[in-house]
This record gives sequence, C-alpha cells and structure tokens, in this order.
Amino acid sequence: MKLFTKSRASAALKFPFQLIESELVEVEARIKAEANAFDPAVEGYVSYILGTSGKRIRPALSLLIGGACGGATADHQKLGIVLELIHLATLVHDDIMDGAALRRSQPTASAKWGNALSVLLGDCLFAHALELAASFDSTHISRKIARSSNEVCTGEILQTQRRFDLALTIPEYFRIISMKTAALFSSAAELSAWLSGASAEVQENMRKYGDLLGTAYQIYDDCLDLTGSEATAGKTLGTDLIKGKLTLPILYLLEESNEEQRTLLNTLILRQEPIDLNVIVGIAGYAGCIQRAVRTAKDMLEEAREAVAILPENDYTTALNGITDYLDQLLDSCKA
Amino acid sequence: MKLFTKSRASAALKFPFQLIESELVEVEARIKAEANAFDPAVEGYVSYILGTSGKRIRPALSLLIGGACGGATADHQKLGIVLELIHLATLVHDDIMDGAALRRSQPTASAKWGNALSVLLGDCLFAHALELAASFDSTHISRKIARSSNEVCTGEILQTQRRFDLALTIPEYFRIISMKTAALFSSAAELSAWLSGASAEVQENMRKYGDLLGTAYQIYDDCLDLTGSEATAGKTLGTDLIKGKLTLPILYLLEESNEEQRTLLNTLILRQEPIDLNVIVGIAGYAGCIQRAVRTAKDMLEEAREAVAILPENDYTTALNGITDYLDQLLDSCKA
Repeated sequence: MKLFTKSRASAALKFPFQLIESELVEVEARIKAEANAFDPAVEGYVSYILGTSGKRIRPALSLLIGGACGGATADHQKLGIVLELIHLATLVHDDIMDGAALRRSQPTASAKWGNALSVLLGDCLFAHALELAASFDSTHISRKIARSSNEVCTGEILQTQRRFDLALTIPEYFRIISMKTAALFSSAAELSAWLSGASAEVQENMRKYGDLLGTAYQIYDDCLDLTGSEATAGKTLGTDLIKGKLTLPILYLLEESNEEQRTLLNTLILRQEPIDLNVIVGIAGYAGCIQRAVRTAKDMLEEAREAVAILPENDYTTALNGITDYLDQLLDSCKA
Repeated sequence: MKLFTKSRASAALKFPFQLIESELVEVEARIKAEANAFDPAVEGYVSYILGTSGKRIRPALSLLIGGACGGATADHQKLGIVLELIHLATLVHDDIMDGAALRRSQPTASAKWGNALSVLLGDCLFAHALELAASFDSTHISRKIARSSNEVCTGEILQTQRRFDLALTIPEYFRIISMKTAALFSSAAELSAWLSGASAEVQENMRKYGDLLGTAYQIYDDCLDLTGSEATAGKTLGTDLIKGKLTLPILYLLEESNEEQRTLLNTLILRQEPIDLNVIVGIAGYAGCIQRAVRTAKDMLEEAREAVAILPENDYTTALNGITDYLDQLLDSCKA
C-alpha cells in the first residue's frame, strides 16, 4: 500500500493529471477540511495525517472516469475523498505494523504519538470515511467500499501470513496484491462509472482497469525495491526480502532456479538478514527475472488500455491512458 | 468498553433476557456464522473472536425494543449483529492498547497472534460489520453506525489523552464514557425504534435509555474496580487508577478533599504505582465517594425507566426495566 514513495529513479516524470488540476486542488482542500468533522481533541492528529500530501491517485481516478463517462459531479469528488480517507487510515495502521518512523519524509503517527493512539486514530478515520460513504443516496457505495476495505486488510493479513513462506505460488501473490494494493483503485474506477450511470459492462471494464493499474504499480514497486539507487549503488537488496516479502521478481527467480540454486536462495531468504545483491546476481538469471516482472506489468498495462477502449475517445480517456503510459515509462527505468 | 467482565460479586444475578432467549440463541449462531463471510485464511482468527461468548447486550437491546415497538424483525436481529461485530472489533483493538493477555479467561487476539495481525483483524471485522450495515435498504443505519463507531474510538482517544490529567472535570468524564461505552448501546436502542417506524420522540427516548444504561454500567464498572473482592481482600486498589484512569468515585474524592488531602492524592496517583487502599480510605470520605457514584448511577437508571415509560407497558418494556433493575442490584453490591 506504499506506492509512489520510492520513485526517485524518475523524479522528472509526472502524473498526467493536468486535465483535472483545479478539481484536484479542490479535493485537496476538502480532504484537509474533513478534519473539522472530528472532535476538537482529535482534530489536530487527523489534520496532520490528512496533510501528508500524497498523489491523490484514487480521487484522480474517480474524477477522470467521471469525466470520461459524461462529466464528473460532486458525487465523484466525494467518492474520491472517501477512498483517499480509507487509504490514509490503512497507512496509519500499516505504519504501526511495519514500525515505520517516516512516511513521505515526515514522522508517522505511530512514531509521533505511539501505537495505542494510532490504532484508534486509524479507526476514527476509517469510521468517518464510512460515514461519508453512507451519505450517498444509495447503499451501493457504502457496501462496495466496506467490502474493498475488508479486502485491503485481508490482503495485508495474507501477506503477513505468507512472509518467508517459500511455498507461495505466483497466483497467490497476484491475489494478495490485487487485494491489498489494487482494491481501492478498482473501487474508485468501478464506482465512478456507476455514479455516472454507465452500463454494467463499462463498470466492469473500469473495475478491471483499476485492478490492472494497481497490480502493475505494485509490481513496479516490487522491482524498484530490488533495482533502486540504493540497491545498485550499495551492497544490500531492498527491504522487501529482508521482511520475507516474496515479490514477483523473486518468485520468478525461485521458479527459474535449479534445485541447488533454490536451496541456496531459500537459505539466504530464511536467514532474515540483508542479502548481498552480487551473491543473488551470481545465482541465477536475476536480471532476467526483473525484466520478466517488468514485462508482466507492461502486459497488464496493455490490458488496462484495452479496458479503457470501451469508452469513446476524449481528453479523459487520453488521460486514463496517460496514467498507463506514465507507469510504462517508470517500468522502463527498472534495470537490475 | 470492558463491561461485565468483573461481576464476580454477583454471579447469582442474571440478565433478564428470558423473553428473547430463543432469538438470542439464533443471534449467537448467526454471529458465529459470520466468520464464513471472511477469506478462508482469516476465517479461523475471526471464528475465535466471534466465539468469545459475551452477554450480547447490544443485540438484546435491539430485540427487546423491537418487541416493545410492535415486534422484532429480521432487521432488528441484523442490527444487533452489526453492533456486536463492531463491539468485538473495538475489543480486539482495545486489547492491543492495554497489552491485555486475557479477556473472559481466554487469550486475547494480540496475545495469541501479536499486535500487527490484531490491528488488521480488528479492521477486517469492522469493515465487515459496516458492509452488513450497508445491506439495509436505507443509508440511515450505515450512517448512524459509522458515526457511533467514530464516537467509541474518539471516546477512547479522549480517555487515553486524559490519563493522569488531574484537571479532568466531571462533565468531561461523563462525555468520555457516554462516547466510549454508551454510544453502541444508544445506537442499538435508537435504531431499533427507527426500524420499527417509531416516532422521533420514541427514538429519542430510546437513545436516551441506551445512553443512560451504558453510562450507569460504566460507573458500576468504575466502582467495582475499587470495591471488588480483590481490592477489599488485598492491599491494592483496582487497575484503573494505576493506569491513570480517573473514574467517577475518584473524581468525587478529589472534589471533596481539602487542599492538603488533594495534594497527597495527586502525588499518589501520579506515582503510577499500586495504591494502598487503606491509605486512600484514610485520606477523605472514600466510602462516601463510592456511594455518591453509586447514587449517581442509580439516578440515571431512574431516568432510564422514565424514558421507557413513553412506550405502552408490555412484556418487553418490563424486560427493559428489568435490565435497569438488574443493574440497580449490582450497584447495591458495591461497598467500599
């Protein structure tokens, strides 16, 4: 769930959100204003969390798809805000679990105020988001959003359970990241189409677009953890492997290793210590596995473009494809 | 939020739930069956949590008020289940914060599986409860329930913030317990009347009934912590004071102390060590303060009976008053 925090490789690239820039400024202001809805004693904490400026991708997806389906309304904006609040609530709880001290260069809630308060703070944020979701006319939105929130947390539980589990299969990996990372993307996309009164087919295509986009992003994040500047310059691999997170390139590497290589890899992973990149590179087709993961993500982006093709071409669908193009370029920067 | 866990003083007393015994058996089965709605990998954890047999007071309130307002329906049952699931989710998170090893003589989720998993598990339960809440026809229920959940967590934050804060006022204390303990009671009561199509006045009276009942219970719990068998037999006061929780009898004691006594009390409290009951008893009108808190709770129960009087008398209103009578008797057992 920690996308886009490590895109140091490509600081020059930007999200193609120019088309909805003024709407996003409004969303940003409204997200910050949501702090006023909390008890004065809690408002300060909430303000801090809402002030951590993310990319607001979920609101952007909602606004762009609303635009592509005939025009974004106040409801599309609200949907984006609800999903962003849920995302922020999950980050507060994530940081507790990871013992993270910093997020986007700022102290995390748990580092500032401790775990006990942060558990409650995440709960308050989540409850508030669900209250806002229940202010739509139909229960459809609340139901779907509660469902997606459950998926995000279940995906996190699955990932936690399967740490250091060398029997993790590639389909299982995809299922986990589709839940933990892509669920709020696909909700934003599908529900935005629903709000526009789009056909069931369009809704399903948008859900798919969001799911593919979220999944491809997670794979990019996985690869970055192994190829970012720290890893290539220094001696240690990224943090995922130390934590026992078996990401797609590593799963490919395990798949392509012979028995002897696999035994060595398993031993290194289970040691739970930083692993020397050069040792791994020497073992098997390491670079090839990163490239295979990159290709997998790129294939997903191609599918995402096909899903968008159901909509008539306009500036908004161009922007939706612009997001996939952007991610495509980021993936190109992943070299082992 | 940990009511009824310490009622060792009165094991002979029972909740007057005979009238809805078969419905509660059904609720119990349905609560346990909710585990099936979770991912297989999470189901086992959820089953464990749902299996901890509480008194199911929130479902009972919903069913009794439904009965009193013309007959409990499947919706009343569902409302009770949703609120019980939210209650259980908050307990999972509470136990993380308190570092509690046992709840109702069973290991807590955090003791069994660690804090990280328990944060997520509470989130999954909460999200599932909100999804179930969104399966009502109207968004009214989702909105109110999300609001109450926020109140419970905000109340907990307030309580955490005000630990060891000797400037806590009695109105502030009441506000905190009305949020953290009574919010789910008052929701159960108010929404049950709403589901029955009761007038706004009846809904408001039921909300009041739930709020007063929940608040009086919390005061009982506060007193029990100072008067339970451990405290009277042994040398130490209960756990609230050690944790810096300034409960009603202690706030009364501080209010009634002279300056010298208050200085001594403050010093003892801020020491964060077990306090010798006899020392406290020697300071000021300790027993009188417990009795004053008991009287305050009993006055609330009287008000709760008045709130119920808006409904025509029948077996269900008798049972609702039976709950207040039951609590009245429990309060009688609190002797300093």
